[in-house]
Amino acid sequence: MSRYDEFQSFRASLNEKILAQGTMQTKRFFTLDTKTYEAGALDAKTKELLGLSASMVLRCDDCIAYHIDQAVKAGASDQELWETFDIALVVGGSIVIPHLRRAVAFLEECRAR
Amino acid sequence: MSRYDEFQSFRASLNEKILAQGTMQTKRFFTLDTKTYEAGALDAKTKELLGLSASMVLRCDDCIAYHIDQAVKAGASDQELWETFDIALVVGGSIVIPHLRRAVAFLEECRAR
Amino acid sequence: MSRYDEFQSFRASLNEKILAQGTMQTKRFFTLDTKTYEAGALDAKTKELLGLSASMVLRCDDCIAYHIDQAVKAGASDQELWETFDIALVVGGSIVIPHLRRAVAFLEECRAR
Amino acid sequence: MSRYDEFQSFRASLNEKILAQGTMQTKRFFTLDTKTYEAGALDAKTKELLGLSASMVLRCDDCIAYHIDQAVKAGASDQELWETFDIALVVGGSIVIPHLRRAVAFLEECRAR
Amino acid sequence: MSRYDEFQSFRASLNEKILAQGTMQTKRFFTLDTKTYEAGALDAKTKELLGLSASMVLRCDDCIAYHIDQAVKAGASDQELWETFDIALVVGGSIVIPHLRRAVAFLEECRAR
Amino acid sequence: MSRYDEFQSFRASLNEKILAQGTMQTKRFFTLDTKTYEAGALDAKTKELLGLSASMVLRCDDCIAYHIDQAVKAGASDQELWETFDIALVVGGSIVIPHLRRAVAFLEECRAR
Repeated sequence: MSRYDEFQSFRASLNEKILAQGTMQTKRFFTLDTKTYEAGALDAKTKELLGLSASMVLRCDDCIAYHIDQAVKAGASDQELWETFDIALVVGGSIVIPHLRRAVAFLEECRAR
Repeated sequence: MSRYDEFQSFRASLNEKILAQGTMQTKRFFTLDTKTYEAGALDAKTKELLGLSASMVLRCDDCIAYHIDQAVKAGASDQELWETFDIALVVGGSIVIPHLRRAVAFLEECRAR
Repeated sequence: MSRYDEFQSFRASLNEKILAQGTMQTKRFFTLDTKTYEAGALDAKTKELLGLSASMVLRCDDCIAYHIDQAVKAGASDQELWETFDIALVVGGSIVIPHLRRAVAFLEECRAR
Repeated sequence: MSRYDEFQSFRASLNEKILAQGTMQTKRFFTLDTKTYEAGALDAKTKELLGLSASMVLRCDDCIAYHIDQAVKAGASDQELWETFDIALVVGGSIVIPHLRRAVAFLEECRAR
Repeated sequence: MSRYDEFQSFRASLNEKILAQGTMQTKRFFTLDTKTYEAGALDAKTKELLGLSASMVLRCDDCIAYHIDQAVKAGASDQELWETFDIALVVGGSIVIPHLRRAVAFLEECRAR
Repeated sequence: MSRYDEFQSFRASLNEKILAQGTMQTKRFFTLDTKTYEAGALDAKTKELLGLSASMVLRCDDCIAYHIDQAVKAGASDQELWETFDIALVVGGSIVIPHLRRAVAFLEECRAR
C-alpha cells in the first residue's frame, strides 16, 4: 500500500473508533478542529498552509501529510508549498529536515494521483 | 508480530544492552525513572496517568504505549483513560491527535490480552 | 504586587479581551478547555494534577501556576504536588528545573494566602 | 517604556552585537532568515502569518511579537490575525493561551501607534 | 535492508529531490547546515557531539542517526558517545529513552561496518 | 541587580528550598544532574558546551545562562561559544534567536566580572 493510502486508511479507521468511544469532550475537540480551517477572512488554502507551517515546526509527519493533502486539494501550487516549507525550515531549523524529506515524498504521491 | 509484542520485545532487548553498556549515570537514571512511579501519597494508577498525560503532550508513542500498559495493569478504566486523553488533547492541541489514534489502537491490544 | 496577584490580574483582564474580540472558534476553545477539568470518572484534583504534569513538561510557567492554584483549591497536599513535580522532572528532564523553582515559589504564595 | 519599545530596542541593540561578534555562519543565518519572508508566490502578509502560526505553536513571545508587528505593517486585518491565532490555538492547544494573551496585548500596542 | 542502509538511501534520494525542486532559500539552508559542522575553534568530532546532544533532546531519530554516524567517522569513542547520551538523558528526561534505545541499536550497526 | 546576580540568587535560594522540601526522588535527580557534567572521557568544558547546545534548542534561558557561566569557568573561549551558538541556531532555527540575544547579553556580563 502507498504511504498515501496507508495514512488515509489508518486515519479514517481510528477517527471512527475515537468518535465512537471518546467522551463528549473528545468529539467537541474534533468538531472544533475541523471548523477552524473553514474559509473566513483567510481563504481555505491559506488556512491549510498555516496549519502546515505549524505542523512542520512541531514535526508531526501525519499532520504535515494531512495539511499537504488539504492544501493541494485547495489549489496550492508547488511554489507556494515550497515557500511554506522554507518558512518552517528557517523557523524550526535543521531538525525539520527529516520531516521535509517525508513531506516532499508525500507531495509527490499527492501530485501523482 | 502485534505492536504490543514488538514494543515489549524491542524495549526489553535494548534496555538490557543499555544497562550493560551504559555508564553509572545511565543506570542511575533508569533506577530513578522506575522508582518515581512507585505508590506514595498518590497511588500507582494516578502516577501512571500523570506519566501518560506528560507523554501525550510530548508526543512520544513508545512512552504513551508504556504508560497505557502500566495504567491498565494498575486498574485504570477506559473512562479514566479517555479523560486523561482529553486533558492531553486540550493542553497539547490537535498535534496530539495522530498519537491519540495510535494510543487508542494500542489500548485495544492491551484490553484484548 | 505579588506574582500571584499579577498573574491573576493579567489573566483575568486579557481573558476578557480575548472573549470580547476573539472569533466563535476562540470562545469555543476556551469553553472546551474549562469543561475538560470538571470531575468525571477522575475527580477534579486528579485532573488538575494531570494538567500540571502536562504543563510542567511543556514548560509553561503560567499554565503551571494556574494548575497549582486549582489543585490547591481542590485539596491537593504538598506531598501530592511534589510527587507530581517528580514525575514531570523525570519525564521532562533538568530543563524542567527552572520551572520547578518558579512552581515552588508560587506554591509558597498559594499556601500563604 | 512600553513593551513595544522595550522589545524593539533590545532586539535592535542585541542584533547589532550579534552581527558584530558572531561568526560568518551566524551572519548567514540572519540573512537567510530575513530573505525567507520576502514576497514570492506567497505575498509578504501571508508569509508573516505563516511565521506567526509557527511561532505561536512553538510558544516564543518575541517571535510572536515580531511577526504580529510585521503582519500589521503588511496590512493584515484583525480578523485575519484572529483566524491565525485560532489555528495556532487548535494545533498547539491550551498551552498556547498564555502566549495568546501576550499576543493580544501586543497587538493592541501595535494598533495604538 | 539494515536500518543504516535504509536511512542512508532514503536520505540521499530525498536530498537530491530537495536540491532539485527547492527554492534558492532551501538550498542556502542546506549549505549553511553543512558548513556549521566544519572544524573551527572546536574540532569536527566535538561539533558532531554538539549536534547529537541537540538532536537527542529534540528527539529526532534521523538527526540522531546522522550525528552518530558522523561522530563515529570523526573518531568518537563509545565512552564519549555514552557521556553525550547521558547529558541528553538528564537534560531531556525519560522521554529521550525510546530514542536512546534506537540510538544504541544504530551505533551497533555503525560499529559493525 | 544585574541579571547575573538576580539569576544566581534566585537559583541558590530556590534550590535550597527544593532540597529541603522535595522528596528523596527530587534530591536524587539533582545529584544525578550535577554528576553528569563531571569530567570523564569528555572534559568538563566540552560537557558544558553539550549542555549548552541542548539548552539552546530547548530554549530555556536559565539553563542557557547556567551553562554559559559554567563553560566560561571551565575555560571556553568566545569563539568556542559562538560555534556552539551556531550549531544550536542551525539545528533549532530562528526560534532560537531571542534566546541567543539573551545569551549574548549574559555572556557579556560573565566576561565583565
